[in-house]
Amino acid sequence: MSDRRVAVILFEGFELLDVFGPVELLHVTPGFTIDYYGPQRGPIASSQGGQVVAEHAYDELVDPDIILVPGGYGTRPLAEDAEFLKQLKTIGTAANLVTSVCTGSGLLAAAGLLDSYRATSNKLAFGWASSFGTDVEWVSTARWVHDRDRWTSSGVAAGMDMAAALIADLCGTDVAREATVFTELEVHSDSTWDPFAAIHGLA
Amino acid sequence: MSDRRVAVILFEGFELLDVFGPVELLHVTPGFTIDYYGPQRGPIASSQGGQVVAEHAYDELVDPDIILVPGGYGTRPLAEDAEFLKQLKTIGTAANLVTSVCTGSGLLAAAGLLDSYRATSNKLAFGWASSFGTDVEWVSTARWVHDRDRWTSSGVAAGMDMAAALIADLCGTDVAREATVFTELEVHSDSTWDPFAAIHGLA
Repeated sequence: MSDRRVAVILFEGFELLDVFGPVELLHVTPGFTIDYYGPQRGPIASSQGGQVVAEHAYDELVDPDIILVPGGYGTRPLAEDAEFLKQLKTIGTAANLVTSVCTGSGLLAAAGLLDSYRATSNKLAFGWASSFGTDVEWVSTARWVHDRDRWTSSGVAAGMDMAAALIADLCGTDVAREATVFTELEVHSDSTWDPFAAIHGLA
Repeated sequence: MSDRRVAVILFEGFELLDVFGPVELLHVTPGFTIDYYGPQRGPIASSQGGQVVAEHAYDELVDPDIILVPGGYGTRPLAEDAEFLKQLKTIGTAANLVTSVCTGSGLLAAAGLLDSYRATSNKLAFGWASSFGTDVEWVSTARWVHDRDRWTSSGVAAGMDMAAALIADLCGTDVAREATVFTELEVHSDSTWDPFAAIHGLA
């Protein structure tokens, strides 16, 4: 059994499924704990209007293990927000693993956390996300990309496939399978499966 | 464009993905609004510990259109809670469409809302859910079951397939496809697809 701590980085306008798809799988995996961080403690409004409570503020996140950065419309102003990007860079640099779903990789790139890494992002917003970063090798056809201590997924639902692959990588395929059977989720285990790239003219 | 109102019935110990899978798809569908109801207004703790804010209390839910009842460990005490079941029956009887994900159908059945209907539930907890109700035709192999104004899905991730089918039923397959392309979700459109029934010895 692993003993891993996942810190979800919430911000106003995050995409709900970007967070709760991966969280569902990670939570049912033995040894994983999940905590929610926001710019301040308290309710944070998602892209969908629903509010999720951040139990902790970003500046309380010391010694991060795994961080999960979602996408959503809230990424647009944050990618231009120097104070946020500085905080994210500090947190991401200290973390053992940095993961993102959807346009969350745009934030990672804008914070400099993907420099010299391979990465992917949402396919509808690929042009936006891939405009950030220095020397990032953006992969336009990928369900997710795992490069050393960075895991980035394609849009929204792709985060669940990435989370299952991450669990398999950390805990073995049997443990990952238990998580997906419990949640009755059929995952794509091939990271190059990506019909949405073609739909959005990227393949 | 439809103009549909979805009321999510939150309770302590609800399963996060049961809610936010369907909500993600319904929210990106033009004309759908989502509101969250709890036993009282304020933060409601999920099965996974994360808290979601109920903006309204159950007794504020008058003239419900579509209700969405999730599963999760919180269903166990509620299925024995006469006051909750009475409230749920009042709300469900007034609603135009009653939907559930996972063990949420156990609550619907316990409230008498599935009497003389066909329905399904989570496959791991099928015995528990199907112990409730009178004259319910429980379908043990089904991703979801649609019977008149009742939609019930299998466990957790199955709620997303049901939501896509519900959107297709209400708005057409093109609209449903737009929702799944936006969220980069590959859905099962065959309601009889259910490998998890066999895994749990039900097929």
